[in-house]
Amino acid sequence: MSNHGALKTPQLCYDFGVKEGQKILLYGKREFLVEYRPGKEIHTHLGKIILKEGLNYGDLLRSSTGAEFVVLKPSLADLMKDVRRKTTIIYPKDAGIMLLEAGVASGSFVGEAGTGSGALTLLLSRVVGREGKVVSFEVREEFIALALENLRQSPFRNYEIIKRDVIREGFGEFKFDALFIDLPEPWQAVPWAKKAIIPGGAWVSLSPNMEQMKKTVLTLREEGFLRIRSFEVLRREMVVRSFGVRPREVMHSHTGYITVARRGR
Amino acid sequence: MSNHGALKTPQLCYDFGVKEGQKILLYGKREFLVEYRPGKEIHTHLGKIILKEGLNYGDLLRSSTGAEFVVLKPSLADLMKDVRRKTTIIYPKDAGIMLLEAGVASGSFVGEAGTGSGALTLLLSRVVGREGKVVSFEVREEFIALALENLRQSPFRNYEIIKRDVIREGFGEFKFDALFIDLPEPWQAVPWAKKAIIPGGAWVSLSPNMEQMKKTVLTLREEGFLRIRSFEVLRREMVVRSFGVRPREVMHSHTGYITVARRGR
Amino acid sequence: MSNHGALKTPQLCYDFGVKEGQKILLYGKREFLVEYRPGKEIHTHLGKIILKEGLNYGDLLRSSTGAEFVVLKPSLADLMKDVRRKTTIIYPKDAGIMLLEAGVASGSFVGEAGTGSGALTLLLSRVVGREGKVVSFEVREEFIALALENLRQSPFRNYEIIKRDVIREGFGEFKFDALFIDLPEPWQAVPWAKKAIIPGGAWVSLSPNMEQMKKTVLTLREEGFLRIRSFEVLRREMVVRSFGVRPREVMHSHTGYITVARRGR
Amino acid sequence: MSNHGALKTPQLCYDFGVKEGQKILLYGKREFLVEYRPGKEIHTHLGKIILKEGLNYGDLLRSSTGAEFVVLKPSLADLMKDVRRKTTIIYPKDAGIMLLEAGVASGSFVGEAGTGSGALTLLLSRVVGREGKVVSFEVREEFIALALENLRQSPFRNYEIIKRDVIREGFGEFKFDALFIDLPEPWQAVPWAKKAIIPGGAWVSLSPNMEQMKKTVLTLREEGFLRIRSFEVLRREMVVRSFGVRPREVMHSHTGYITVARRGR
Repeated sequence: MSNHGALKTPQLCYDFGVKEGQKILLYGKREFLVEYRPGKEIHTHLGKIILKEGLNYGDLLRSSTGAEFVVLKPSLADLMKDVRRKTTIIYPKDAGIMLLEAGVASGSFVGEAGTGSGALTLLLSRVVGREGKVVSFEVREEFIALALENLRQSPFRNYEIIKRDVIREGFGEFKFDALFIDLPEPWQAVPWAKKAIIPGGAWVSLSPNMEQMKKTVLTLREEGFLRIRSFEVLRREMVVRSFGVRPREVMHSHTGYITVARRGR
Repeated sequence: MSNHGALKTPQLCYDFGVKEGQKILLYGKREFLVEYRPGKEIHTHLGKIILKEGLNYGDLLRSSTGAEFVVLKPSLADLMKDVRRKTTIIYPKDAGIMLLEAGVASGSFVGEAGTGSGALTLLLSRVVGREGKVVSFEVREEFIALALENLRQSPFRNYEIIKRDVIREGFGEFKFDALFIDLPEPWQAVPWAKKAIIPGGAWVSLSPNMEQMKKTVLTLREEGFLRIRSFEVLRREMVVRSFGVRPREVMHSHTGYITVARRGR
Repeated sequence: MSNHGALKTPQLCYDFGVKEGQKILLYGKREFLVEYRPGKEIHTHLGKIILKEGLNYGDLLRSSTGAEFVVLKPSLADLMKDVRRKTTIIYPKDAGIMLLEAGVASGSFVGEAGTGSGALTLLLSRVVGREGKVVSFEVREEFIALALENLRQSPFRNYEIIKRDVIREGFGEFKFDALFIDLPEPWQAVPWAKKAIIPGGAWVSLSPNMEQMKKTVLTLREEGFLRIRSFEVLRREMVVRSFGVRPREVMHSHTGYITVARRGR
Repeated sequence: MSNHGALKTPQLCYDFGVKEGQKILLYGKREFLVEYRPGKEIHTHLGKIILKEGLNYGDLLRSSTGAEFVVLKPSLADLMKDVRRKTTIIYPKDAGIMLLEAGVASGSFVGEAGTGSGALTLLLSRVVGREGKVVSFEVREEFIALALENLRQSPFRNYEIIKRDVIREGFGEFKFDALFIDLPEPWQAVPWAKKAIIPGGAWVSLSPNMEQMKKTVLTLREEGFLRIRSFEVLRREMVVRSFGVRPREVMHSHTGYITVARRGR
């Protein structure tokens, strides 16, 4: 029944000791996402929480006022939300489908422009893993520093941030499996992208306004890209109580239009 | 500007020769997703297409009637759609956010029940990569064979399918970072899942009906799971023409409700 | 408890005899919307149905093959869908909110351009009633004939169709409580509309594309209209079975963007 | 071109003098919906506004700080929102389609349970007009008083509120064209409704939770109602600027599930 002998023995090799510098999610009546340092004190309106030495995921901590918190490992979605935002945010609902439509997986070689706060860069780094690579382009010095700070949450050192205005200078000699564009005028990157994506490789961009999306699609068509599609993704939270289930009353309705395409020949 | 010396030289090591047995996407007026074998003939209503030896991604093929097709690498989304469906389908719009909310990335150790056609298994295999592992449980023999066939599209041999009725027998000694449940009565798997997920690890399930989702959420609460959330994801395609942009008139509106939670202590 | 003496006696004055020329809905395994004439024969794939003399709403008819049909009065929504379509359709989901946002009720004086098949005209006629009036403008002869035919389903003779190209000639001396615009280039009607709506009266237009809606909104702003809002309305059907409730899988996702505004001074 | 001689002369008979006791909408940087009394002073954070004698719709008023306000007639949608809310609110997006699906128009004879704040009663009163009637049932004294107060905004005295618990006592001898149910347990009203709706007449109910809607649908089926459909309506506001169009970021996503059905024989 199995195709892989080495897996037949149950895996017991997991490790849930928290390492210094890693982000942890303190989950109780409220949630706090904090960086772990042994002995660190977290001051909240629910009292002071001390991060003991030798902290493990799943540990229960009690604040000075008696409030209980479980130590959780933040998900990719949590880490992306945490990334300090000075730019447009990429939401998990969008990022997930962007990865899948672009075919990004373990081992992919991926480009990105611009880096911004590094939220998407962090996700890409974690998904492409040790055998993959992420090259991200950003023109604004302060964002490079911020992104590198945020990227410390990746367990992999598989990323590079290059200071460059890709609209004016392009992507150099790189040939990416997939290229993610988060720039205000994505259409200006299309001619450069054509050279920087392998034949059949993926273009992915995200823009809040209809006009940006339209101009991007029309430019991709002109430049011979294939299989061009634009769409938006809506996430609708549900309220679940024993006496009644319904969608939540208020919803975050719009982030942006995603455009995906394939480089032709 | 770079944090990783080895990346400073542009990457030129990409390979776009198609390997025998890999799926390729023939993209022209219509799309065909076929398995590559040198010399193979594809018969379509647009004529016969011959897959030449030494095929490369990006190659242009011409059918016997003169129709042109570009050879593209299918994305994860394409491969998932292709997986021969005998069970509920998992759509890319759902699968992407499920990965992110579960924190699955390169190196994760992931469980799944049931395997079905292997669409999600294939995705998980490609995302967790060489250093990760996927253990999938399925009780129906015929699906195991089908899934193993479909899993040949993964470049990694990091998966195992175990024939077992997890509702009755549980997950054995495994301890997963994340566990994906695609069963008609997910709530029955909750007590077993509690033992098979590491503290703080993720539960993810998908159910078409509200009642299934409700019962799952209530059971997760009873069993002490944390951060339980249910939601649905809608994907809205856009029609983009130079004279007019609008959402497509008909949309695939519902697939299922996703429930994510974290194991407590 | 009552504010209106005359209503204290229960109403028994309803009439459910079907009048010749009225549309009826034959509801069984399938639905048929047909015009009533005594003795008329309806030929369906479920057999022949004879519309007997003295037909009443609620009657049960049996076809020649034994299939049963109940005689129902079509709703405004049914009648609108039935109106023979040669133009853009206005859906009940859109029409309902358009009425409310425009403040149209019994007694309103309403304008419309263009008439098209008369679906919205019919609705307006039925809502404004005996004390209200609808003036509809249409430039294409063949649509005027079609609309007048469809308007026979209204119990009121409170409408007029005027053959005129309002983009070139405007609305004459009329002063409407509300003006409904269903033209390909609604923005061209804005300067005329300003003269044809009473101060504070409502503009309502519907356009499938974002660009049309944008141009309309910008023109309304330039011309001093107030309280300008654009939105779209989505209707999501539910599947309800004793074992499971969920949204229907496929949904009609887009019809158009509704723009409402008020004339300023 | 016209089917109705009397309409050939342009209508000049509109009246935009505001009557004492009517609600007006003061539209400027902010909106205020107030009741008109000549000489009344409105105190706002933008200064004091005096409602002069002989006020007309379209008049421009200036506050004590110089802020400008146009006097607008509130739409049905505005009035419904204004109705003092102590109960579930019915939103225009829902109310509009409810009217159309129920076939309510000028002259209809309509029932409602319960009255609540009278928001829907007000709408129904204005739509059925002088030749129609609305009978609304409410068991809680304080709501009857509130609703009668709110109903003063209707130009018609075509409504009656009856104090009665319809779940226990039913609707008496009334036979309605359409019956609107806004009760926490709508299914309990189904057997009574069957007697109080004319054959082929419409049932309309609105419930926030899935379980309520489901139980209502299953009970309607048991009791022989026809053409039973449940759906929800979403309204998505657009942001329109000269440099960019997009959906508004936050949206009111859920109010309730609407269920419509027809009485069978």
